[in-house]
Amino acid sequence: MKTHDKQSIKQYLRAVDYLTVAQIFLAENHLLSRDVTFDDVKSRILGHWGSGPGINFAYAHLSYFAKQHDQDTMFVLGPGHGFPALQANLFLEGTLGHFDQSMQPNLAGIRKLCREFSWPYGFPSHSNPETPGVILEGGELGYALSTSYGAAMDNPNLLVACLIGDGEAETGPTAGAWHLNKLLNPRKDGVVLPILHLNGYKISAPTVFGRMSNYELMTLFSGYGYEPRIVDATKEGVDPHDEMAAALEWAHALVAEIRASSDKIAPRMPMIVMRTLKGWTGPKEVEGNKIEGNCLAHQTVLSEAKSDPEQLKILNHWLKSYKFNELFSELTGFGDFVGDILPGTPEKRLGMSKHAHGGDSVYKPLILPNVDDFAEDAETPGTIGSSSMRRAGAYLAEVFRRNAESKNFRFMSPDETYSNKLDEIFQATSRSWQWPIMSWDKDLSQDGRVMEMLSEHNMQGLMQGYVLTGRHAMFASYEAFLQVVSSMVDQYAKFLTQSRSVAWRGTIPSLNYILTSSGWRQDHNGFSHQNPGFIDDILRRQSNFSNVYFPSDGNVTLVCLEEMLSSVRQINALVAGKTLEPRWLSTELARQQVSEGLMIWDFASDENPDIVMAACGDYPTKETMAAIDIIKTECPAARIRCVNVSSLTTMGLGTLRNVATQKKFDEIFTHDKPVIFNFHGYPQTLKSILFNYDVHSHRFDIRGYKEIGSTTTPFDMHVRNETSRYDLAIAALRQLGRRGVMPFEEAEHRAAIYQAKIDENTAYIKANGVDLPEIDAWVWPAARGEAQTAEEAWHGQTN
Amino acid sequence: MKTHDKQSIKQYLRAVDYLTVAQIFLAENHLLSRDVTFDDVKSRILGHWGSGPGINFAYAHLSYFAKQHDQDTMFVLGPGHGFPALQANLFLEGTLGHFDQSMQPNLAGIRKLCREFSWPYGFPSHSNPETPGVILEGGELGYALSTSYGAAMDNPNLLVACLIGDGEAETGPTAGAWHLNKLLNPRKDGVVLPILHLNGYKISAPTVFGRMSNYELMTLFSGYGYEPRIVDATKEGVDPHDEMAAALEWAHALVAEIRASSDKIAPRMPMIVMRTLKGWTGPKEVEGNKIEGNCLAHQTVLSEAKSDPEQLKILNHWLKSYKFNELFSELTGFGDFVGDILPGTPEKRLGMSKHAHGGDSVYKPLILPNVDDFAEDAETPGTIGSSSMRRAGAYLAEVFRRNAESKNFRFMSPDETYSNKLDEIFQATSRSWQWPIMSWDKDLSQDGRVMEMLSEHNMQGLMQGYVLTGRHAMFASYEAFLQVVSSMVDQYAKFLTQSRSVAWRGTIPSLNYILTSSGWRQDHNGFSHQNPGFIDDILRRQSNFSNVYFPSDGNVTLVCLEEMLSSVRQINALVAGKTLEPRWLSTELARQQVSEGLMIWDFASDENPDIVMAACGDYPTKETMAAIDIIKTECPAARIRCVNVSSLTTMGLGTLRNVATQKKFDEIFTHDKPVIFNFHGYPQTLKSILFNYDVHSHRFDIRGYKEIGSTTTPFDMHVRNETSRYDLAIAALRQLGRRGVMPFEEAEHRAAIYQAKIDENTAYIKANGVDLPEIDAWVWPAARGEAQTAEEAWHGQTN
Repeated sequence: MKTHDKQSIKQYLRAVDYLTVAQIFLAENHLLSRDVTFDDVKSRILGHWGSGPGINFAYAHLSYFAKQHDQDTMFVLGPGHGFPALQANLFLEGTLGHFDQSMQPNLAGIRKLCREFSWPYGFPSHSNPETPGVILEGGELGYALSTSYGAAMDNPNLLVACLIGDGEAETGPTAGAWHLNKLLNPRKDGVVLPILHLNGYKISAPTVFGRMSNYELMTLFSGYGYEPRIVDATKEGVDPHDEMAAALEWAHALVAEIRASSDKIAPRMPMIVMRTLKGWTGPKEVEGNKIEGNCLAHQTVLSEAKSDPEQLKILNHWLKSYKFNELFSELTGFGDFVGDILPGTPEKRLGMSKHAHGGDSVYKPLILPNVDDFAEDAETPGTIGSSSMRRAGAYLAEVFRRNAESKNFRFMSPDETYSNKLDEIFQATSRSWQWPIMSWDKDLSQDGRVMEMLSEHNMQGLMQGYVLTGRHAMFASYEAFLQVVSSMVDQYAKFLTQSRSVAWRGTIPSLNYILTSSGWRQDHNGFSHQNPGFIDDILRRQSNFSNVYFPSDGNVTLVCLEEMLSSVRQINALVAGKTLEPRWLSTELARQQVSEGLMIWDFASDENPDIVMAACGDYPTKETMAAIDIIKTECPAARIRCVNVSSLTTMGLGTLRNVATQKKFDEIFTHDKPVIFNFHGYPQTLKSILFNYDVHSHRFDIRGYKEIGSTTTPFDMHVRNETSRYDLAIAALRQLGRRGVMPFEEAEHRAAIYQAKIDENTAYIKANGVDLPEIDAWVWPAARGEAQTAEEAWHGQTN
Repeated sequence: MKTHDKQSIKQYLRAVDYLTVAQIFLAENHLLSRDVTFDDVKSRILGHWGSGPGINFAYAHLSYFAKQHDQDTMFVLGPGHGFPALQANLFLEGTLGHFDQSMQPNLAGIRKLCREFSWPYGFPSHSNPETPGVILEGGELGYALSTSYGAAMDNPNLLVACLIGDGEAETGPTAGAWHLNKLLNPRKDGVVLPILHLNGYKISAPTVFGRMSNYELMTLFSGYGYEPRIVDATKEGVDPHDEMAAALEWAHALVAEIRASSDKIAPRMPMIVMRTLKGWTGPKEVEGNKIEGNCLAHQTVLSEAKSDPEQLKILNHWLKSYKFNELFSELTGFGDFVGDILPGTPEKRLGMSKHAHGGDSVYKPLILPNVDDFAEDAETPGTIGSSSMRRAGAYLAEVFRRNAESKNFRFMSPDETYSNKLDEIFQATSRSWQWPIMSWDKDLSQDGRVMEMLSEHNMQGLMQGYVLTGRHAMFASYEAFLQVVSSMVDQYAKFLTQSRSVAWRGTIPSLNYILTSSGWRQDHNGFSHQNPGFIDDILRRQSNFSNVYFPSDGNVTLVCLEEMLSSVRQINALVAGKTLEPRWLSTELARQQVSEGLMIWDFASDENPDIVMAACGDYPTKETMAAIDIIKTECPAARIRCVNVSSLTTMGLGTLRNVATQKKFDEIFTHDKPVIFNFHGYPQTLKSILFNYDVHSHRFDIRGYKEIGSTTTPFDMHVRNETSRYDLAIAALRQLGRRGVMPFEEAEHRAAIYQAKIDENTAYIKANGVDLPEIDAWVWPAARGEAQTAEEAWHGQTN
């Protein structure tokens, strides 16, 4: 590194280190025009110092590197509590000032920077969506690396420098994310440069990585498939700046070499292990305890500085050590060193990366095909032959084709695209894979747009990084295993909540999930594969941006997908099966259903009902329809209303744009008639939503997954959870008996017949391993050739 | 390996491979007394073949090893879908027969084994709690390694052989679990021998580890701190049996060397990378597709064998290739090879490990100290000075002391024991750490009983393995981040559900969680650290073994801990803060409260109430109590009932032993009075539980965490979520006005005063960073020296 530039970078670091400390402590006297007094110290000293100096060191060198090479660079900070350091850099480089006039790099700016850090109604203590350049909050650790890989996809000119803390590195999600080098193509995608920041300590203990030997570190990351290099800023006798600058140049050259090489298998991309002292440049000792280079540097170090004279003295000494007065003057601002270090073009400064901010420069709506081109004939409701996932696969393949040029759509799945019957996608693209490919491998290539790895965490991280940088994605999974990332989704939801009110954050697409291979049809995998909890995770959050779709058939699935892929800034989940099931709605009716979120199915309903049969979810809908068929057979006088719910939000039934009001709720569910509601997920989930309405709980008989299951038949799953057509019919007949629609004794008698049928089926299952043929063979009256009779009974087919 | 023994192991493998295939396909003709016909094939062909032969290979060699060394060995199978292989071994070694008379290793047994595999009301398709020797279901992948480490702790004579699939190895939780070698002491704990099974493929694609080079594999696991060794059973020219047997002998010698060595730092324990062909010994090709050594071997391979003549032919060829008739005869059973391979003592056979089955041989109740010895004086309710976590720390330290000899209690935390104010534990024990320890490190030693790593997945896995092998544990975490393992807990709950009905599974302790550093008090960390979702995860499951405790103060906390640590086979969570808060109940009242789960607090209640003020959770309780104080001041005529809920279950309010009935519910909440309910978690969670009662939803005004927060003051958190004393008082006053208890206008006027107080505080916060002193200073009337006045108003202190 040139001597002049090294001088400048040292000055730059003194400035940002000073500002980091000042944010934590100073309410007044920000230029140290006198000794700091108790009055100058904040009444609320809350923040994290320890990781700050290392972050500043990396940020300064990355800025310098970006300047030298005119390199588009994004900075992803893993440990979000290192926020005062990040903020100091964003302030000094002018990014904060760009987005907020009051944050110019002058005294007023410094004052605001310090006073509002970690202050109620000011700045939070962690990096957050109000911070420019940030696409990761980092409060919950573990997701920086996978998010960085997501941001780099399809951005070949971008360098994503990802700083991973050594605490964060202990998490499973980070440990698994190192393998994402096997999925990104160094020629078509951007470069992720992981910088593992070893300051050696967590809150109160050493870190695993901090106590690993250099041999262990080098072999570990070699094994992961990287070319690692250690920059040890704690080592006596070497200049850390020379080391770090040389490491970045080395990484740059190595990437260029890989990109130019004809050998495309298993590219060993660079990564840096950066050792610094925790709390570097801070107090070495306080009250006899080692601080610098120890866990005790983690938070504020001098928590009693507002009242303890000894701590105040140390604080004065600490602040003065940076000689901030040599770096900044009230009249002329910061010295020339800033310009020596930072890229000349403001847009090239790390915090200004357009990729982090959504909107027109990175976001482009998808070109979507016409749903009708993929629809199935559903003129006669109940016709068998709809696989929601097969429909989805065909539709998504076309989405890939139409947007091939824009390179802005990716599909994530943990090794399940085939298993989920979505493999028609592979007619339009393949799976990305950079390690060896064998002659017998199918649908693998270095340029695939489908990302598969058996890590839900990796898939979620890729999607977050991709979507937060403005591109579109969909994540399909076995329903049960999205629960693995529920916490990541919680954190994303928090990021989204906050970012929606940040004016300069432009449009980004929604996070989109497909939950399939439903628990109801885990005939071959059994109990562990039955978990509808993810729905609940999304819905329990008091949000107004989450929508869970429960299409009843393939046509409704298509309309839902169209809605999801054209929506922005939402979290959408579609829950649908992959087996062949009845078709219920034409695309016209499907559009109406999806727009309202809940609908009375006229073709199966009477006026002035005695009872409401409601369903939400494809398999529950089928059982409800079959139950209606039974009830009508057993009690022709019964007046039934068939209600289908295709969308839930936290606020209520329906869609985000169209949450069912109390009035609509009453119109649909009546004021006083019994409702037998067959639900796809846990009954608790639906109960929590219904409670939002003015309801009497005992009018609703809520059925759903009661956590009972095994390796068994589809119908037996319903029987065990009391969601089968027979269970529903029994409940309905008894209600009709109690209400005098049919004689009480008669109703009980008829109900007993269906109880016997359940027992008969169970015996049959034990002997034959499958359900009674009559159960599998059931179709809706209109579809079984009783259309004309059904017309009289059910007021025509689809009306 | 001796020639004779090698012959035997080959025969053993032919037997278990045959039985693996037979389970998947054969309904009849299990001894191949004639060609297999369509009629012989199961009507339901569901199961997984591909990983089976490799599992059999490992199991056979581990059995042989256990026999040679008379070594106590447990086998933990990561990929649970390899169940037919596991089952075949358990059958052959006599373990199934030991637990089930009808499963003897004879023809009847073989018939049952095959017919009931993956059959409704028979055996599931995955390993499960009904399977002897199993402590991991393995349906959701990723948890085998951490669970194995948990089982090994404090079992110095035990070898836990953990087979990790290469699909599973891609998961974050597994990637992070390799680092658990840094926490287990090879001299005091048992040995975990990880065997990474590289058959190279997942459902439909190659695995990451399968395509890594030997160099990458060796360096990766060296870097993780192991001494790795590759056993390549796919390599031409080497004998896989010699290789595997030698590798196990090598591992054994290496462990002995480490245990004998004087160097105790960073012990490099052995691990084995075992390459086999996926579907080894199965069909090489079907319909022109490569099967053996490819992903297409994953499931049944011949799914149409019941109807396709070509597939039936292949099946016949496949089954016959094992020459099962040479290995088993109906008259004399299996040949001598079984005895050559399996440990002579049945108890030493892998599936018979006592450690897997709970009960008296491994479970010993904890010796618990007397709660009263740790209690605080709460004669005057409202006295400030209770930190639930400080109480818990003192109590748990004593639990460690009293059970030191039994070595059957461990404490897990992701680097937060100090931060959660539980560090009094370190007066009794320390944190376990096997890598270098520095002179300035605190509370680290090679023998610590506190397990800390910044990986909730690792902590959860350790706890599961420890508890399922009969020992006691507690896992404390920031409330927000237990959500990281919600999916693991879901799977554990499924395991527990099923195992409770297995007669031979003996007593095991409960899983115990402490959720602290509550979202309400994340003043310095903000929004990302506010997530009460874990409570919801536990409660939405339709279970009868989950209990969430919400102690209102330190004394109640102590009683809850006692309940948790003496309970068995439950999942318990305790939600409590670490800050200094009011004391409400004496231990006598605390015991009553905890036993009932909900209680009318007489000292703050009137007869014949106009309104019910209910709270659940410590911070919400404090706000409710302060609100009652305000209401009584503003409207002395108001008759208030104060209800405190300290325990929730899925089934209803209260405890598992004592769920509030409808009658009790009505007695406590009245039939018709408004209830203002201040809840610790998401309102949705409470709503879903209340819906189980016969209630009118709109009588209940449910307050809770509405997902609004930032870095702000404690009171502001309540204000933002409308759970503050002022918000509650406003709601109550308006109810009293509407109901004519006080004049309507007056009520509105009084309510407006408190709205103004909220605004005043917000302004104060912005300027000073803290709440108005009067808010922090509030104490309950009795405790602020108004005891006598309060006595008149509130019928005495604690009654």
